[in-house]
Amino acid sequence: MASTLQEINDASPADALASLAGVYEHSPWIAEAALAQRPWRSLADLKHAMARAVREAPVEKQLALLRAHPELAGKAMVANALTAESKDEQDRAGLTHCTPEEFERIRQLNDAYNAKFGFPFVLAVRGPRGAGLTRQQIIATFERRLGNPVDFERAEGLRNVHRIAELRLNDKFGAQPELGERVWDWHEDLAQESDTEYKDKGQLTVTYLTEAHRNCAAKLVARMKECGFDEVEIDAVGNVVGRYRGSRDGPALLTGSHYDTVRNAGRYDGRLGIFTPMECVRELANVGRRLPFGIEVVGFSEEEGQRYKATFLGSGALTGHFDPVWLDQKDANGVTMRDAMRGAGLPGTVEAIGSLKRDPSRYLGFVEIHIEQGPVLNEIDLPLGVVTSINGGVRFMCEIAGMASHAGTTPMDRRRDAVVALAELALYLERRAADDGDSVGTIGMLEVPGGSINVVPGRCRFSLDLRAPTDAQRDRLVEDVHAKLREICARRGVASTIEETMRAAAAPSAPEWQRRWEAAVDSLGLHVHRMPSGAGHDAMKLHEIMPQAMLFVRGENAGISHNPLESTTADDIDLGVQAFRALLEALAEELK
Amino acid sequence: MASTLQEINDASPADALASLAGVYEHSPWIAEAALAQRPWRSLADLKHAMARAVREAPVEKQLALLRAHPELAGKAMVANALTAESKDEQDRAGLTHCTPEEFERIRQLNDAYNAKFGFPFVLAVRGPRGAGLTRQQIIATFERRLGNPVDFERAEGLRNVHRIAELRLNDKFGAQPELGERVWDWHEDLAQESDTEYKDKGQLTVTYLTEAHRNCAAKLVARMKECGFDEVEIDAVGNVVGRYRGSRDGPALLTGSHYDTVRNAGRYDGRLGIFTPMECVRELANVGRRLPFGIEVVGFSEEEGQRYKATFLGSGALTGHFDPVWLDQKDANGVTMRDAMRGAGLPGTVEAIGSLKRDPSRYLGFVEIHIEQGPVLNEIDLPLGVVTSINGGVRFMCEIAGMASHAGTTPMDRRRDAVVALAELALYLERRAADDGDSVGTIGMLEVPGGSINVVPGRCRFSLDLRAPTDAQRDRLVEDVHAKLREICARRGVASTIEETMRAAAAPSAPEWQRRWEAAVDSLGLHVHRMPSGAGHDAMKLHEIMPQAMLFVRGENAGISHNPLESTTADDIDLGVQAFRALLEALAEELK
Repeated sequence: MASTLQEINDASPADALASLAGVYEHSPWIAEAALAQRPWRSLADLKHAMARAVREAPVEKQLALLRAHPELAGKAMVANALTAESKDEQDRAGLTHCTPEEFERIRQLNDAYNAKFGFPFVLAVRGPRGAGLTRQQIIATFERRLGNPVDFERAEGLRNVHRIAELRLNDKFGAQPELGERVWDWHEDLAQESDTEYKDKGQLTVTYLTEAHRNCAAKLVARMKECGFDEVEIDAVGNVVGRYRGSRDGPALLTGSHYDTVRNAGRYDGRLGIFTPMECVRELANVGRRLPFGIEVVGFSEEEGQRYKATFLGSGALTGHFDPVWLDQKDANGVTMRDAMRGAGLPGTVEAIGSLKRDPSRYLGFVEIHIEQGPVLNEIDLPLGVVTSINGGVRFMCEIAGMASHAGTTPMDRRRDAVVALAELALYLERRAADDGDSVGTIGMLEVPGGSINVVPGRCRFSLDLRAPTDAQRDRLVEDVHAKLREICARRGVASTIEETMRAAAAPSAPEWQRRWEAAVDSLGLHVHRMPSGAGHDAMKLHEIMPQAMLFVRGENAGISHNPLESTTADDIDLGVQAFRALLEALAEELK
Repeated sequence: MASTLQEINDASPADALASLAGVYEHSPWIAEAALAQRPWRSLADLKHAMARAVREAPVEKQLALLRAHPELAGKAMVANALTAESKDEQDRAGLTHCTPEEFERIRQLNDAYNAKFGFPFVLAVRGPRGAGLTRQQIIATFERRLGNPVDFERAEGLRNVHRIAELRLNDKFGAQPELGERVWDWHEDLAQESDTEYKDKGQLTVTYLTEAHRNCAAKLVARMKECGFDEVEIDAVGNVVGRYRGSRDGPALLTGSHYDTVRNAGRYDGRLGIFTPMECVRELANVGRRLPFGIEVVGFSEEEGQRYKATFLGSGALTGHFDPVWLDQKDANGVTMRDAMRGAGLPGTVEAIGSLKRDPSRYLGFVEIHIEQGPVLNEIDLPLGVVTSINGGVRFMCEIAGMASHAGTTPMDRRRDAVVALAELALYLERRAADDGDSVGTIGMLEVPGGSINVVPGRCRFSLDLRAPTDAQRDRLVEDVHAKLREICARRGVASTIEETMRAAAAPSAPEWQRRWEAAVDSLGLHVHRMPSGAGHDAMKLHEIMPQAMLFVRGENAGISHNPLESTTADDIDLGVQAFRALLEALAEELK
């Protein structure tokens, strides 16, 4: 049996197939298809080749793959008819030791799931860390996924099949994602801190300068020191700044992301971009190695704008965009930002904050790792994606005013219905944004104020969120959507108002830094996938004063974010750390 | 000059034109066009012929007609360049005695109006009663109409032109709508009673068994006695019942409508159907005349279901459909219906209410006059419309469940957006209902619960109100809309739930009674227009036990209802009274 990548690349097809037997449950056709891609450049490449074989197979074969799996804690287990791999996995998850009540609940879920989907529930019971989910987690996941639409759940089942295969391949090749596991654990530890009212509900929420927020800062300081940073400090806006000196003076690499969260958040949003470079510094410091440039890692204190309307407060302080007016802004409890700062032991003065502004000539550039927060990498089975641009966005609050009238007595051709006018716009927006390929447009808020079941709606309020990779593309989108709204209103005899509430310039990646990320990803034997970032990130702010580029790490659960289901695996995190390390090494080579 | 209809019908074209000079401001072409319709069967027929000439003229001629009018309290008035008719009308409205502030305000409004619409503001300043609007009413109307869409306001301007012409014709022919004026005044008097919290805001609201409601009942009792009804009583559910005996025993004609109102209501909804037959009885009693059948007029105490969820309580008691469970229902202040009844001096017992059930064999049938509450009669310039059927309706509360996701990071082709799914349904519904011609479908309530500007909406709640003239047609509409929703959901990978909240059977008019209304309308020299009723009415309940048919009277302001702008003219009310009288006479002839 081949036990290294080299061996399996060199093996005869039959031997290679034998080595991969059991990775995908009762489905040797997957390894056969992946064989055509040899030589695999890395274990990650092999994983991707197999996942791609499934993705490109007809739906019937995908369903057969799902149906090849045993029921969870089901009859096959009782009858001892599991494959060795399945038995081991279900064992590790404790599914062989369910209470009678748990068995009964799982039996009911299996029945309901099979009835709805026509294939068994497949779950990678070893979980994102590889250490096994609890029985409670498994049952909760089962219950949640039972509510998914059928085609969505088929994809989710297949993603779990790939995760199972990944863990089996790791075992076969003795490959443990140690870097990723460590960083995964750091996230887990930091997520213990949560604002009181949310912690009590088991939710993660860390807003600017709360006790939990300050505890997070303290934990980051401690962790940075432990990693071997030379200097660690909390600055005047609460950013945690760690510096690891280079072998010589000169411009440093700036990196980092934010540690505050939205309400009821996921654990990786922002924090992955602090911990990933920290792990790289830990490795360097461990062996006393210095690169020819310094590394400055910043845990930004505020990016989400939850407690105060001051989004990008942390990174904005570094670019000199802290607005002094914010100091007098009050939170929901009437506490001014200035008082919150002083309560946290920060000076709370314009002077102190102004001094945080960075001199771009002292930096090589800014890089940021972030969880994708979207479904794209998931759907193409790739763990990493190189960001080409942070999309420019603009937001509007709009209202269509028609004429309220009696729903029974107003014939269809005599209505001035605000909702059908909105409906036309919604469908146009969907089509128009899709035509661009990489633009997006969303009506996220929508209401008929004071609407009645028997009244033709005279008003309709809604939001528009439009984003595109370049400002020009965004502006064309805005123009077209506005023109369409005007046209609809004129034709339907209704009026509209549009109020712009936010406008953010696109931040295209600096070409040389994007190329460095591409080279880093390629060095891991992974296909380089380029994609825009639909969400805003701290890099957008730094973009204003220095070159920047970002790298995305795939999220589980279809990439859901701003949600407790946000998740990523130790394996994907590990590849992110490796990519960051590769970028550092290449940069060191350049600057040698 | 011709001063009677007979004379003008017999006059030479030139003389007829001379007689009609000045009816339409500087626009003899209208009288010319109407001339082709001679002989006119009635003054109402002549009014309609002239209005139709305008309606069928090209838009440019309609605009020229509007532009032929002087500005309100404008330069022409100051320069004394008004036609005699305009001067008289503006005089009567006191516009020649405006304060400097009022002149200035009207000047600003004239400027803004001309800038927006390109024609002057035309208002029939003598108002719906013909007695003249106040300067405050005129300015408020001006301000409101300034907000109208352009084409809507053009139609509204033309409707005012027709109303001005109507009043000028009345003057020319010495025709005063005395019956209509009296009934108009009765509405005005009854509208003085309003539930306290609304009265303080100048709004009309009369809900079941409040003090205002009981005052209304007392006023109706007094008015009925004054009219000469033989018996008048308030029954066990608060209905005001007046009986005018026939010349012989035998089945009576049942008629009436409701005197309760929605919140911030109009003055005519329901009440017109009580006062119109009261006026007819007043005329009969005045001369001591008895018809060969009795007339029973009921002011139903409750139709709108505002205080308690017990719509059609008043008419339902007559059909034996009072639900005893209702007695324990509480209003918003926790007062049960039973206690409310007892507080109003009613027995509040199931027995007393049960005894109100009518024996159909003792009635000829049920007729009801009602304000249209819709724009149809307005648009075809007809004062009366014969109802063919009260539309059957069904209501649903629905929810579309997609998947909430990040508005920035979720590509357009990977969304499960609940709002765009709803948008497709809204446009389908509009088209599908319009295809029927006489069906209507409305999404009156709509919201994205907890929606955020930057989140693809995962849920969308909305109402559906579907109506059609027959149950079969309504059911096909429902079926098609539900099928479309299923198709949209399947294609978009979203789910939907539908909960039926109301279902009312259609109530087609009894053919013989519809024919009686048609004959009555025809006898006034008016074109007979048949139309379904989109709204529900007390006649729907009576339909369950006896034949029924309804007559509609045109409303002003594009037929708006459930709104303080609900209005109708003394002239239109007068024609309604005349039609009711004609129906009584024809029935007396039949039963002679």
